[in-house]
Amino acid sequence: MMRILSSNLKNNIGESVLVKGWVHRIRILKSVTFIILRDRSGCVQCVFEGKPEWTKGLKIETVVAIEGLVCTSNNQYQSVEIQGKTLEIQNEVAEDLPIQINGDHLEVNLETILNNRVLALRHFQNQAIFKLQALIVAAFRQFLEANDFLEMFTPKIVKEGAEGGAEIFKLNYFGETAYLAQSPQFYKQMMVIAGFERVFEVGSVYRAEQHSTNRHLNEYVSMDFEMGFIEDEYEVMAMEEKLLKFMFQTLAEKGKTQFEALGIQCPVVPDIIPKLKMKEAIEILKTHYQRHELDGDLDPQGEREISAYVKTKYGSEFVFITHYPKQKRPMYTKCYDESDETHSFDLLFRGLEITTGGQRINEKDILIERMVAKGLDPTLYSSYLEAFKYGAPAHGGLAIGLERLTAQIMDLSNVRLASLFPRDQQRLLP
Amino acid sequence: MMRILSSNLKNNIGESVLVKGWVHRIRILKSVTFIILRDRSGCVQCVFEGKPEWTKGLKIETVVAIEGLVCTSNNQYQSVEIQGKTLEIQNEVAEDLPIQINGDHLEVNLETILNNRVLALRHFQNQAIFKLQALIVAAFRQFLEANDFLEMFTPKIVKEGAEGGAEIFKLNYFGETAYLAQSPQFYKQMMVIAGFERVFEVGSVYRAEQHSTNRHLNEYVSMDFEMGFIEDEYEVMAMEEKLLKFMFQTLAEKGKTQFEALGIQCPVVPDIIPKLKMKEAIEILKTHYQRHELDGDLDPQGEREISAYVKTKYGSEFVFITHYPKQKRPMYTKCYDESDETHSFDLLFRGLEITTGGQRINEKDILIERMVAKGLDPTLYSSYLEAFKYGAPAHGGLAIGLERLTAQIMDLSNVRLASLFPRDQQRLLP
Repeated sequence: MMRILSSNLKNNIGESVLVKGWVHRIRILKSVTFIILRDRSGCVQCVFEGKPEWTKGLKIETVVAIEGLVCTSNNQYQSVEIQGKTLEIQNEVAEDLPIQINGDHLEVNLETILNNRVLALRHFQNQAIFKLQALIVAAFRQFLEANDFLEMFTPKIVKEGAEGGAEIFKLNYFGETAYLAQSPQFYKQMMVIAGFERVFEVGSVYRAEQHSTNRHLNEYVSMDFEMGFIEDEYEVMAMEEKLLKFMFQTLAEKGKTQFEALGIQCPVVPDIIPKLKMKEAIEILKTHYQRHELDGDLDPQGEREISAYVKTKYGSEFVFITHYPKQKRPMYTKCYDESDETHSFDLLFRGLEITTGGQRINEKDILIERMVAKGLDPTLYSSYLEAFKYGAPAHGGLAIGLERLTAQIMDLSNVRLASLFPRDQQRLLP
Repeated sequence: MMRILSSNLKNNIGESVLVKGWVHRIRILKSVTFIILRDRSGCVQCVFEGKPEWTKGLKIETVVAIEGLVCTSNNQYQSVEIQGKTLEIQNEVAEDLPIQINGDHLEVNLETILNNRVLALRHFQNQAIFKLQALIVAAFRQFLEANDFLEMFTPKIVKEGAEGGAEIFKLNYFGETAYLAQSPQFYKQMMVIAGFERVFEVGSVYRAEQHSTNRHLNEYVSMDFEMGFIEDEYEVMAMEEKLLKFMFQTLAEKGKTQFEALGIQCPVVPDIIPKLKMKEAIEILKTHYQRHELDGDLDPQGEREISAYVKTKYGSEFVFITHYPKQKRPMYTKCYDESDETHSFDLLFRGLEITTGGQRINEKDILIERMVAKGLDPTLYSSYLEAFKYGAPAHGGLAIGLERLTAQIMDLSNVRLASLFPRDQQRLLP
């Protein structure tokens, strides 16, 4: 007999069926035994007469196959139930569970959740988080493909790894020192210049930063795009506005069940996201939040404050901060001629930076100049610089951190909860 | 004026337009100058009266913006051309090109192609390869999503990295020894067991093998899926048959232009791919190819021979080799009870292995037994083993090497040509 998913049983009323899954709950009464079976699609109540032999020692989360008759019913899971005939144990549970995963919430702390990750992921809220995350990525790709961006796969083992910013992981590559890519930055620029013009990548990136906060991971998924022949960074921001609008609309539609499971609503992206120059943002923080110590950049508290301000004033949960000063941006960032500012931006969403982007320098000599000004040695970037010798159009792009975006959409308290198997300074397992 | 792509100009006959791109060709005659402009969508011929000032020193691959009038025409590129008014140089080419990229073929060797990767990628054949590659991946995902597989992102920095097979890259992770994942094998199994049941991932994997062949890369893209509640490995093969059928059909439709550019046809996947047990394959090689030295596995020559045999006998360019002996397969491979064989398979396509798959062991004790039999220390896999304690359904899956699949579809002589920025023992740049 072919297995049927629990969510499809409503089409099989009056038929004998086979279902397979995990024992979600067991309730043994005097004359009847209830087994709630859970599979990837949901739960179904299975009712057995009396107290069958197999109830002896049956543990929650055992993998079972149940045959029985589908009947209409009125229970908390579905409008049908199964009148069970046989139950076969397919994979036993040897020990008592370390955490309870069939309740309304996982009533344990973050460490315990991550230490018992495989089990914790079975909780319906975690299932919902990662189903939504998959939808986020799919919508990101769908929009970009429709807008003529090409998906690419660039190496994560790199030689010219250091962008002059955060620390990077080193490895021994057949006797040579190599690095784990902090971002596909150089490669996405090269791909624009290689004639593809519009490219995107969804892939792992690595930061050896010694941060231990609720918003940092040492390995995370970066959603990058880069586009050529732009006028300036405002074209990149306009593309992100349309991209996010599409992503969130798609998410609201396709992720309806998951949002309901999490008891939250999908955020709404305004057509035009408010934009503040860094100088304006700092002025606002001075005036309205008595923050007088900020210099050219926002700290995490400042990000939250400016987001709160924008939400009150413009009704938007998103805000672009533009015109970062050049000391605060990497060497490849295009600078304004007449000031210390750059053609760059961050996007804050609910008080957290989820995107960094901007227009890049596309003139080799200026790029070398900026490297030197940043104290970097241009000879260490010769393969990157080579790309700018044979016709490099104006270009720009951005990166969105997948786990951060997921966490902000779902109001998760820690970005680790939006990573299946998070990596931080203390955590390499599971 | 808004930029128009060259492939859209046919809709603008009689209008003034702006095009931007690279100077693909220059031809200066007595009374007229031809500039062939190339953008991501193709080429367009632009005709200027006389010999304008900017022709002086204008180099091929310069980035230009051209304004002019769209007229019907009869030239090798399009049924329209642009009567040029102005040409603005947007980014200059400083030096002569090291390779010629506007010919019918890139007439240089592999090393030169890879040393000049950004430039070489501008050649229309390389553009076609990576546009087709993006379609391959998109179709892989589309099929799996439609079949209820969830996209996942698993860590590439791992602690329990060694599957007991090929060598792996080590790195210092905040003072601890970590590895770069050889595959998402453990994690995709964990995700099935975590209740997602069906998962897939497209991501980088790492092999520190010291091979230097035309079919090995040290970093490549693996397309993995894993599915729970299967009967046996034949269910996994059946899924791959449907998957490949869908992928190749989609590719033939959406990649028509690219196949034409490459001058090749999209291969056809039979509904049922021929299956040979390893023992049968070895018998065939003995009988028909006088190969008497093979023992439980095929060498590259044997792969080519068995593919040739199957193509002649069954008309299929694909063949599954099944029932690999357990010495040749990793410890997690499920074994047949009554023999030395395993529930595993490879898929050969045009003489090359492009998939490895099989059913996995889902019983913790048997898994430990197999680890010990393979000389592996189970305590080094405790986090992986932990997953099998609380209900692990029968499951199996496979991995397809993206670059190999791409290379075989397009008859490329070296897998490096199907990687944007390949990594091998000698190559970390660009």
